[in-house]
Amino acid sequence: MSLLFPVAAGFDLAAIDTSSTPGFSGDKKAAERELADSGGELAGLQERLFAESKFGGTRSVLLVLQAMDTAGKGGIVRHVIGETDPQGIHLHAFKAPTEEERSHDFLWRIRAELPQAGQIGVFDRSHYEDVLIHRVRGFSTPDAIEERYGIINEFERELADSGTTIIKVMLHISADEQRARLQERLDRPDKHWKYNPGDVDERQSWDQYQEAYQIALTRTSTVDAPWYVIPADRKWYARWAVQHLLLEALRRLDPQWPAVDYDIEAEKQRLAAT
Amino acid sequence: MSLLFPVAAGFDLAAIDTSSTPGFSGDKKAAERELADSGGELAGLQERLFAESKFGGTRSVLLVLQAMDTAGKGGIVRHVIGETDPQGIHLHAFKAPTEEERSHDFLWRIRAELPQAGQIGVFDRSHYEDVLIHRVRGFSTPDAIEERYGIINEFERELADSGTTIIKVMLHISADEQRARLQERLDRPDKHWKYNPGDVDERQSWDQYQEAYQIALTRTSTVDAPWYVIPADRKWYARWAVQHLLLEALRRLDPQWPAVDYDIEAEKQRLAAT
Repeated sequence: MSLLFPVAAGFDLAAIDTSSTPGFSGDKKAAERELADSGGELAGLQERLFAESKFGGTRSVLLVLQAMDTAGKGGIVRHVIGETDPQGIHLHAFKAPTEEERSHDFLWRIRAELPQAGQIGVFDRSHYEDVLIHRVRGFSTPDAIEERYGIINEFERELADSGTTIIKVMLHISADEQRARLQERLDRPDKHWKYNPGDVDERQSWDQYQEAYQIALTRTSTVDAPWYVIPADRKWYARWAVQHLLLEALRRLDPQWPAVDYDIEAEKQRLAAT
Repeated sequence: MSLLFPVAAGFDLAAIDTSSTPGFSGDKKAAERELADSGGELAGLQERLFAESKFGGTRSVLLVLQAMDTAGKGGIVRHVIGETDPQGIHLHAFKAPTEEERSHDFLWRIRAELPQAGQIGVFDRSHYEDVLIHRVRGFSTPDAIEERYGIINEFERELADSGTTIIKVMLHISADEQRARLQERLDRPDKHWKYNPGDVDERQSWDQYQEAYQIALTRTSTVDAPWYVIPADRKWYARWAVQHLLLEALRRLDPQWPAVDYDIEAEKQRLAAT
């Protein structure tokens, strides 16, 4: 995992080459093959995590995805999470908050979507919007934002203590790569629907977003809930890397088929009598 | 679609051969190949349905899965729904109702999990439990159950009027096939966790469940929300058949890339200026 980019002391977002492929020496074809080949292992680990929750297990996994527009969150969900069993996944895309959501504290809507025991939760955007877009667009005061880093760390520590393995990923693209992807959405009729004029507005604040990410990642990368910055100019690499992080986390959890609480032989006899 | 078993006048659940494969003449290998080959078309239709919802489209699809234990609902979700994009799916498994759910009318928890515009909703069990297990186990009075058929038809008609295409599927296995599958769960350590002693209790009411299904399917198969009984002793056939129903429904909806509400040329210029 250290071959990727865990956020630690001396972290400098601007120094990361968004087109690099740390930890992977092969090409696109090799990455896609590894992704497909590892789908079975991922699904198997997922099934055992789910199984253990049926007999008292309380562990879960939470994958948090953050990124600038077009960086590929959707592709991660489609190609990495899409290889797992939908029954063990709790996916939620956080949009601009509703009026009801805004009437509560910023973690209220997050708590409502946490994975249950046995599940892999996937957040497409998250509570980090409250220290990213809120900082850049001034939706909250600097004091409120300052306070949130600590609130987030405390929240995630409690979550980890309760059995959730947290993996936070920033998909990191360059400004040039974003322009090319937005251009493609404008050029291709089958991609027009993915384009939002607001994306260009946000793009005009590129540097401020990078600064907000630098601060947020530095302030909230903890032992319990580390951040990983994944270079994402190459989609195939980012997909491989996220699957790699999920696999490593699940291998460490090492879920096992649970011991059951019924008498197997007695049940065989009951069944035979029907 | 008529090659499957839509529930219509003269319907007799007991007369259906649970090991048959209506509408499909090939073998297991051919069915699995068709399932895989059609995954791309299904995903493409799903993406267009999702896309149209981003520009005013209000249509959605709801797949309701009901079955006796072990009939293969989980396999349908894993192998058919698993071939789609998780971002366009809203999957919910309805368990025994919580105390809060029981304090509301029986459709309250159902309404909360309906697919949004552009989504394919999947119900693993549903409001039909309130006329199936409730009838067999006497959880509700006969009068209350009698009333529910009409309430359900009205509810589903409103849902259809609001743009939801409803597909209701009963996966139909024989009592012998269920015994074999429960036996396998008791024989294989990696399947023990799937076995629940309550399954044998329910199995002892097999005939009453078949009767409850016969009545429920007959009373609630409507033009707006038809029931299909899918013979499910052969898992590969049931998966092919459910995908076939989904494909037919989506082909009829024929979703198109939406006309966008922004000026494409103006956006190209704005983008180029960044």
